[in-house]
Amino acid sequence: MKKIGLVGGTGYTGVELLRMLQDHPGVEILTLTSRSEAGKSVTSLYPWLTGYGAELVFAEPSSNALANCDLVFFATPNKIAMEEAIPLLERGIQVIDLAADFRFSDTDVWAATYGGRHAAPTWNARAVYGLPELYRDAIRGAQLVGNPGCYPTATTLPLAPLLKANMLSTDIIVDAKSGASGAGRSARVDLIVAEASDNFHAYGADGHRHGPEIAHQLSRWSGQPIEVTFVPHLLPMIRGIEVTIYASIKGGTTIDDVRQALHEAYADEPLIDIVGPGIHPETRWVRGSNCCRIGVYQQHPGRLILSSVIDNLVKGAAGQAIQNMNLMLGLDEWMGIPMRPLAP
Amino acid sequence: MKKIGLVGGTGYTGVELLRMLQDHPGVEILTLTSRSEAGKSVTSLYPWLTGYGAELVFAEPSSNALANCDLVFFATPNKIAMEEAIPLLERGIQVIDLAADFRFSDTDVWAATYGGRHAAPTWNARAVYGLPELYRDAIRGAQLVGNPGCYPTATTLPLAPLLKANMLSTDIIVDAKSGASGAGRSARVDLIVAEASDNFHAYGADGHRHGPEIAHQLSRWSGQPIEVTFVPHLLPMIRGIEVTIYASIKGGTTIDDVRQALHEAYADEPLIDIVGPGIHPETRWVRGSNCCRIGVYQQHPGRLILSSVIDNLVKGAAGQAIQNMNLMLGLDEWMGIPMRPLAP
Amino acid sequence: MKKIGLVGGTGYTGVELLRMLQDHPGVEILTLTSRSEAGKSVTSLYPWLTGYGAELVFAEPSSNALANCDLVFFATPNKIAMEEAIPLLERGIQVIDLAADFRFSDTDVWAATYGGRHAAPTWNARAVYGLPELYRDAIRGAQLVGNPGCYPTATTLPLAPLLKANMLSTDIIVDAKSGASGAGRSARVDLIVAEASDNFHAYGADGHRHGPEIAHQLSRWSGQPIEVTFVPHLLPMIRGIEVTIYASIKGGTTIDDVRQALHEAYADEPLIDIVGPGIHPETRWVRGSNCCRIGVYQQHPGRLILSSVIDNLVKGAAGQAIQNMNLMLGLDEWMGIPMRPLAP
Amino acid sequence: MKKIGLVGGTGYTGVELLRMLQDHPGVEILTLTSRSEAGKSVTSLYPWLTGYGAELVFAEPSSNALANCDLVFFATPNKIAMEEAIPLLERGIQVIDLAADFRFSDTDVWAATYGGRHAAPTWNARAVYGLPELYRDAIRGAQLVGNPGCYPTATTLPLAPLLKANMLSTDIIVDAKSGASGAGRSARVDLIVAEASDNFHAYGADGHRHGPEIAHQLSRWSGQPIEVTFVPHLLPMIRGIEVTIYASIKGGTTIDDVRQALHEAYADEPLIDIVGPGIHPETRWVRGSNCCRIGVYQQHPGRLILSSVIDNLVKGAAGQAIQNMNLMLGLDEWMGIPMRPLAP
Repeated sequence: MKKIGLVGGTGYTGVELLRMLQDHPGVEILTLTSRSEAGKSVTSLYPWLTGYGAELVFAEPSSNALANCDLVFFATPNKIAMEEAIPLLERGIQVIDLAADFRFSDTDVWAATYGGRHAAPTWNARAVYGLPELYRDAIRGAQLVGNPGCYPTATTLPLAPLLKANMLSTDIIVDAKSGASGAGRSARVDLIVAEASDNFHAYGADGHRHGPEIAHQLSRWSGQPIEVTFVPHLLPMIRGIEVTIYASIKGGTTIDDVRQALHEAYADEPLIDIVGPGIHPETRWVRGSNCCRIGVYQQHPGRLILSSVIDNLVKGAAGQAIQNMNLMLGLDEWMGIPMRPLAP
Repeated sequence: MKKIGLVGGTGYTGVELLRMLQDHPGVEILTLTSRSEAGKSVTSLYPWLTGYGAELVFAEPSSNALANCDLVFFATPNKIAMEEAIPLLERGIQVIDLAADFRFSDTDVWAATYGGRHAAPTWNARAVYGLPELYRDAIRGAQLVGNPGCYPTATTLPLAPLLKANMLSTDIIVDAKSGASGAGRSARVDLIVAEASDNFHAYGADGHRHGPEIAHQLSRWSGQPIEVTFVPHLLPMIRGIEVTIYASIKGGTTIDDVRQALHEAYADEPLIDIVGPGIHPETRWVRGSNCCRIGVYQQHPGRLILSSVIDNLVKGAAGQAIQNMNLMLGLDEWMGIPMRPLAP
Repeated sequence: MKKIGLVGGTGYTGVELLRMLQDHPGVEILTLTSRSEAGKSVTSLYPWLTGYGAELVFAEPSSNALANCDLVFFATPNKIAMEEAIPLLERGIQVIDLAADFRFSDTDVWAATYGGRHAAPTWNARAVYGLPELYRDAIRGAQLVGNPGCYPTATTLPLAPLLKANMLSTDIIVDAKSGASGAGRSARVDLIVAEASDNFHAYGADGHRHGPEIAHQLSRWSGQPIEVTFVPHLLPMIRGIEVTIYASIKGGTTIDDVRQALHEAYADEPLIDIVGPGIHPETRWVRGSNCCRIGVYQQHPGRLILSSVIDNLVKGAAGQAIQNMNLMLGLDEWMGIPMRPLAP
Repeated sequence: MKKIGLVGGTGYTGVELLRMLQDHPGVEILTLTSRSEAGKSVTSLYPWLTGYGAELVFAEPSSNALANCDLVFFATPNKIAMEEAIPLLERGIQVIDLAADFRFSDTDVWAATYGGRHAAPTWNARAVYGLPELYRDAIRGAQLVGNPGCYPTATTLPLAPLLKANMLSTDIIVDAKSGASGAGRSARVDLIVAEASDNFHAYGADGHRHGPEIAHQLSRWSGQPIEVTFVPHLLPMIRGIEVTIYASIKGGTTIDDVRQALHEAYADEPLIDIVGPGIHPETRWVRGSNCCRIGVYQQHPGRLILSSVIDNLVKGAAGQAIQNMNLMLGLDEWMGIPMRPLAP
């Protein structure tokens, strides 16, 4: 049994990691730390985990136990892992950061997006972007993985094979919608049921941090700079992301070519589903699972429409992190991964 | 045009008062005060009010403008009005408190429920409980009205005529459910969409402040002490209260007698609807309106079931307050009152 | 009092018309017809209207009463009004069709979109598109109005002034999202709470009937053919449409020019609100009201983003129809129009 | 691997059985039948199951394959299993009926509740009520199990130990609330999002079929006839049942005695959780899991309040059926049972 540490598991990403790690047959949770909740039991924060075996208690972040782990997850705010993970990395411990610290191969793009100076550029240069369907081999050998953002995961999976095949122009529009769990477990008035249920609106339409992350990935697959217009919206529901993508197809490429390219790229992927013509993937079709489902449409020649859905907390965060962990630890990639959605 | 002041209109009760007062043909808003939001415009807090005429700005609570009002609403937390309304009352200004300060004719019951000592027992003795269908004449002549709580309104309307007619035993169970707007405009984690939508639970099952208020009212109409078991629940929706009431019918009384008594009691009330046999009132049938709808059922002889629905922010708070205001100012009772629900 | 008829008022558009007509000081409902529900009372279908005066009963569509009306609304499925409204029009009665029969000045575009042959091309040539902010004068003099679709209303209002000013290129993307009431009062499994709440998905991504209607209107304002890519999505909520529009700004035009053009175009419109920079309009800010709110954004030079919200049943259907009725009958345009949203 | 048949798996109970059976390590699905959907694939009805191995297709109910099964589930409407399961039972095949045909030891009570004459009284006499925490040993030896209703499960679990210990009077009130999935996968107007979301109401307040089932069970545990007043309500959400129970405690019994009795009764049950004093169990704490959580409260001496939550489709239907299957087949009781809830 591999020994796992979890730093900062008090948000929804943390509780999803716990849900999956506690059922995982190949690992055990050695320690769980939280600056704000140290000394509290997991079930005092997450009563719904009551009754499933040993009581976990949040330790101080300074806990020595982290040093005895094989792999440590950082489910912390941005700019924590790039400081606190370094001593662990230097001891040879593997690290997966679920924030944005290690998602950009170019620290200048990171700095332009998140501000300040990157604290660990050398480690950043060794980090792998944790999207297994696209970087599986590199993740297998990685000591440090930057787990992708939820919107970038939903957007990059359908687009990477098409950009790699040089099928699309460089100007891409991403209209994204996310359930409210994407905003985290935060005491914010604008998120309470009386404000945010039975309601819908865009946010960050002048620019959102996931825009540069998406552009960074897409440009990598395209080989040219991709200009991404990215507008997220808040859905009156809990889980699920849908992105509708608008792109121009290059001359000579047909929608059937696009669909074929996606089928080929993901032929061996058990959790990537290219839905049939005329079918529209629904967020509940991936609720609670690590699956991504993608639809392909066209209204005018040359104009491609894609719709991609994931569960923002699973494939968009914790499930993908466990998939990365399995690869990094040499375990079966799908061990402990929630495959099947919970619907209705 | 009567001059109206509003103290503390930053919560949902306040914004509902504004919605109704701005459309009301018989009054004008002279001033609006808020300790926390002084200097801010109403539309900076409530952008959905943008575009309807003059911009209102929250003044300091010390504002002299209150002294020039004919009537002042206190949409403040408990224990504010019993201090701050007194100088206004002493100048002869009429006051409606939407908190609990003036809801109990017996300040001992108030103290046992809310703690501490009542700051204005003399004025409390002159206060009228603002449930117009039951205390209309007293409200007409009142200088000070304690506006009822939302749960007590939904519960007292169906029960008062039956207790007055001596039809029920003294042990009454009230199972109540409220939309999340009843918890106010509060930045609380347990109210965010990711926690409170697609979810349901009881709260305060060991005792809730509206229990004594209900018992106080019911005992008044019964002439005997009524023991109320009151359990509220939080609904994953915005507006609406439903209470299901279980009571024992006294020997010789039939369910038809009960239905008849309700029809008679409310024959002249345009906004009290006794629904037909087999019909179950729905909260959306009163959404946004000042209406109360009541159903009557029976499964076993002697055991009465009532279901009553109101909009917690309208008949349960602001709409009822405007109804009281109209009576106190000698205006038509229904002026500016939202009559018709918004459905679907 | 003008006499009003309503054909087919059994859907949500019908019940919204009733809500507004019953409170309207300038008109009275003379008759209400329904093929499927003839003989039933309005409140048997819409119990939430119980208790507000006289009981309306659905008459047979053959009812002579329609012939005595000043103006008749058709809240019927497509292709009914183009048959059944003609005898009324020939008697000089004014007609507003809430379906698509009279929305296209070019019946070929209509036929390509809805199939078959138009039954009343001559009357169609005299019909006016009922978007008052854009066609007010023509509506004032019209005998026949085609009331716009919900998505076209939300999309055309922000774009028309910009296309007229020649600020945009001819390729426009409209990513639209609608509450479930837009799908009507239909017994469909895919609309029940267990399927459609806590869920989100695109539909009609290969082509939806509102696409050609939008393109038809936009081309009219542009003077050139506009290619519209239109993808609607189903929101897990009741009321509200948000459209996010992506367009290219022509060289030399800035985002400030765009904002300025919208402010000027709608300076005198009480119910069109151009929200400030950085503000994102929310669907609840227009819930139950006839208002449209529009935001303007930019991420890259030359690429314009607009977000527009309306209530699909009010400005997107019944409210706009009443606004048209007021203009056609020579009444005050805002009489009986719900101005203020119901929020929270 | 035991061979499993499923008759009528086209509703939500059926799809939940499929979700659990496909992941279950001890059984394989041999056949799946449906009268209405024969010839269709499972994924044409439930697209969210796409991508997880072999495609299942609904066979005709006359399929011989059922005769080769070890155990057959009937997820059919009432009165199907009591006809169609008999030939299978006579061949020695084990049967679990998820409808009400075999839930009543007394066929007269069944007939009074469901109408008509029971078609298989002899088999009914041998049937076991499938509530494992209360009838585990009998289920182990059973050939035929009547799987309990969702409301009766949530109600009987907290009450049975207290009635057995003679702690309660015979008059019990059950105020129950269920998510909309409890109404099944039905094309009903009253269940669509535009009608049933952001809404709440009672139904069946004059009598509901689960009332007699609850009374039947409670009387069995009490040894005396229990009078149950049972009022269900429809929640604007998908999954979850909460029941609030009001009962009188017999003289001398305290709330601590009650809590102690529940702790003792369920000390060895991994999926029954008696929550601590002052805690209120939430439906999301059991979402997707086979768990039942119970709270105990008191406001007045002698008056007991219980709150119990389950997932109506899991512990209230399919999960409980799998638990029964495991016991009947001699497998580990918890094999393939979803233990952990999906939250947020």
